[in-house]
Amino acid sequence: MPVSARVSKGNVLTLGGVSTEVLARDFGTPLWIMCQDTIEAAAREIAAGLQHYPAGALPCYAGKAFLCTAMVRLVDKLGFGLDVVSKGEIETALAANFKGSIYLHGNNKTDEELALAVKHNLKVVADNQQDLERLVQLHSKTERTTPTEVLLRIIPGIDLDTHDHIKTGHDTSKFGIPLSQLNDTIAYCLSEKSIKLMGLHAHIGSQAMDLEPFQQVIEVFADIYEEVSKRFSYVLPHLDIGGGLGIAYVASDKPIALEEWTRTISNKMVEAFQEKRGLPLPSLSIEPGRCLVGTAGVTLYRVGRMKQLEQINYLSVDGGMADNPRPITYQAAYTAMVANRMEPREEHLKTWTIVGRYCESGDIIVEEAQLDAAPGDIIAIFATGAYNYSMASNYNRTARPACVLVKDGHSELMIAPETEEDLLRLDRIPSWLK
Amino acid sequence: MPVSARVSKGNVLTLGGVSTEVLARDFGTPLWIMCQDTIEAAAREIAAGLQHYPAGALPCYAGKAFLCTAMVRLVDKLGFGLDVVSKGEIETALAANFKGSIYLHGNNKTDEELALAVKHNLKVVADNQQDLERLVQLHSKTERTTPTEVLLRIIPGIDLDTHDHIKTGHDTSKFGIPLSQLNDTIAYCLSEKSIKLMGLHAHIGSQAMDLEPFQQVIEVFADIYEEVSKRFSYVLPHLDIGGGLGIAYVASDKPIALEEWTRTISNKMVEAFQEKRGLPLPSLSIEPGRCLVGTAGVTLYRVGRMKQLEQINYLSVDGGMADNPRPITYQAAYTAMVANRMEPREEHLKTWTIVGRYCESGDIIVEEAQLDAAPGDIIAIFATGAYNYSMASNYNRTARPACVLVKDGHSELMIAPETEEDLLRLDRIPSWLK
Repeated sequence: MPVSARVSKGNVLTLGGVSTEVLARDFGTPLWIMCQDTIEAAAREIAAGLQHYPAGALPCYAGKAFLCTAMVRLVDKLGFGLDVVSKGEIETALAANFKGSIYLHGNNKTDEELALAVKHNLKVVADNQQDLERLVQLHSKTERTTPTEVLLRIIPGIDLDTHDHIKTGHDTSKFGIPLSQLNDTIAYCLSEKSIKLMGLHAHIGSQAMDLEPFQQVIEVFADIYEEVSKRFSYVLPHLDIGGGLGIAYVASDKPIALEEWTRTISNKMVEAFQEKRGLPLPSLSIEPGRCLVGTAGVTLYRVGRMKQLEQINYLSVDGGMADNPRPITYQAAYTAMVANRMEPREEHLKTWTIVGRYCESGDIIVEEAQLDAAPGDIIAIFATGAYNYSMASNYNRTARPACVLVKDGHSELMIAPETEEDLLRLDRIPSWLK
Repeated sequence: MPVSARVSKGNVLTLGGVSTEVLARDFGTPLWIMCQDTIEAAAREIAAGLQHYPAGALPCYAGKAFLCTAMVRLVDKLGFGLDVVSKGEIETALAANFKGSIYLHGNNKTDEELALAVKHNLKVVADNQQDLERLVQLHSKTERTTPTEVLLRIIPGIDLDTHDHIKTGHDTSKFGIPLSQLNDTIAYCLSEKSIKLMGLHAHIGSQAMDLEPFQQVIEVFADIYEEVSKRFSYVLPHLDIGGGLGIAYVASDKPIALEEWTRTISNKMVEAFQEKRGLPLPSLSIEPGRCLVGTAGVTLYRVGRMKQLEQINYLSVDGGMADNPRPITYQAAYTAMVANRMEPREEHLKTWTIVGRYCESGDIIVEEAQLDAAPGDIIAIFATGAYNYSMASNYNRTARPACVLVKDGHSELMIAPETEEDLLRLDRIPSWLK
């Protein structure tokens, strides 16, 4: 739940001091809500665990989790860097006048994206040798005299215990440079004057519930940094440990506290680099995405049809797989409550499967929720801040909802809702069908 | 493959008489292409199997598979009806001036959608008792004197051998009225003068590779129609058998031919209703979606980075899970070819896993394709006409591609591509972040 979540005297969920009943009425449903206090609290925890890291550490928000210009402003305000992965995310950062460091990621960067990186002084997280060669080529076409700062994404060979779709550190990942090719890649970087090699990057995967893989990857890094300093007489000045910390979607999820995560990483870096190997400590970056915004998000739906069958009870809401594709894609579980009746009437509790309005059986939001619900009620689904808006579709030609930021009793749009006109705006009729 | 697919003298795939190299150059990649000839050929097959059905049969296109105004025009030209499921789909049909019958489906219809149905004389496929009650209410607020034609969607209790997400005929489906409640619902319909009860509807699920479930459901219908005629002295004049016929995505898929599908249904109707039970034959509707447009669609991508690891070779393209979420959602398989080198050079053939550009390991388009490919080549993925555009997202803030209709050497936009401006257009910055 967002840190600002309260229950009003009228038994209604409030977020950021604003009644969810009022939000649903004013902005319509479905509605994505982001609680700024929760994002700020998470940012403080992340920073707290890193503050004693001797060589300096910068958290960079992984924009893929949720990005719009208002979110960029918020990230800037927090003093974080920003990870981007596409022209669209770069343009979003530029449109919001982002002042901090921007890292360009991706396994298939276009020349246009790399050229934007050179032009706007982004740091490039090279995924492969071709990234570097294209970067050098593009540099030669500009008047830029300073090199581009580059990190090399490696495949550390670490297998995270998570959904197959979101594992990324294992040996057969599409992301990164295999360790067997790393020396050649480093030699190339050191030979090119338009590249300033800062260090290495790895990302072990998403929704990690364990600190062990982060500690393992630091040992892998320390070995490599030691070897690089010997082989190339070059001290890599920076290290990017990636992100991937899990959050709680349901009561049985037991995520690591954010401060513990970053403090453990910070301590392990000192141990592995300094104490164990006598290496100089690189400066550090870390990439929280889901764990910065996930819990800040709440989706509101309005209850529509309710159907009692012999084996199952269905409660239909006015959204579903188009605004939250995570259940159908990752079999993700969520927690639901009736936002306008937070304290249920015991005698009205019933087990409901909450389904969406889309033409598909897999369009299930929560299986078996105990709810005291009636048509017209507002259902709140928690922890929808990450990978909901960012992965949303217009399936069944439905308009995507608004996203509202709440704080201190205020609520304003971060993203305006689509309209039916938006859905038709790009339709064209070929001349022979006119 | 689309029926118009040919290989040019230059060894390039052409669709509708247009070179895919030219299409990729003129419209960019990724690119969705729809072949009009394929849609028309499928429509002819569907119609051929129904033409001898004695009581008349109307195929209605299930718009959820792929809908835009140009597609509505095409459906109209084919003489088909149209299934819609949302305000957005209704507005699309109206914007394209659709002349045929429109059926409004959905498990959670809004009052706004039902009011549009009453206003524009849509037929309503009621999913539950509440649909009917709201419809009657809304009628009483209009000056319309003719009743709305209504079908009742039932849960026939038939379990299709397909992906769990797209099963819909089984006993625990979210869609439809359980048989135990059907008599009460029929009685309600017959008592309301704003409702004209036309008959029943069922949809057993998607991607069916077997005729048996269609025959089974007709037996279920025939039993019910017989019982209804006795109990209510009312002959249901119409029956909607649903859709769900599968198509070939890979060579091992062996779909039923369209004409065989509709002819089998037609014959089975005569047998079950007329011959076996001596019942009058209802008029028939049937709902092809995927099988009308799926094979007509081809997606073109440009090859970017290529990466050879010890255990796997990755070929990255400039699209992926955002323009085709079916692999990550349904573990769907696809067939890939190099469109600009249709006849490969044997000595350059290699096994590639085709992955997208998105920040996710699950972003795999085809596992293990034998390809003679190099950066800059065009990859064609076949059978992407259904549930690609309609389920596409802007994940990683990427703009959705254009969709082009090809026929007789011509190519024109059905859907214009999004731009980065489109991605930013709805972003708003709350006043306290300005």
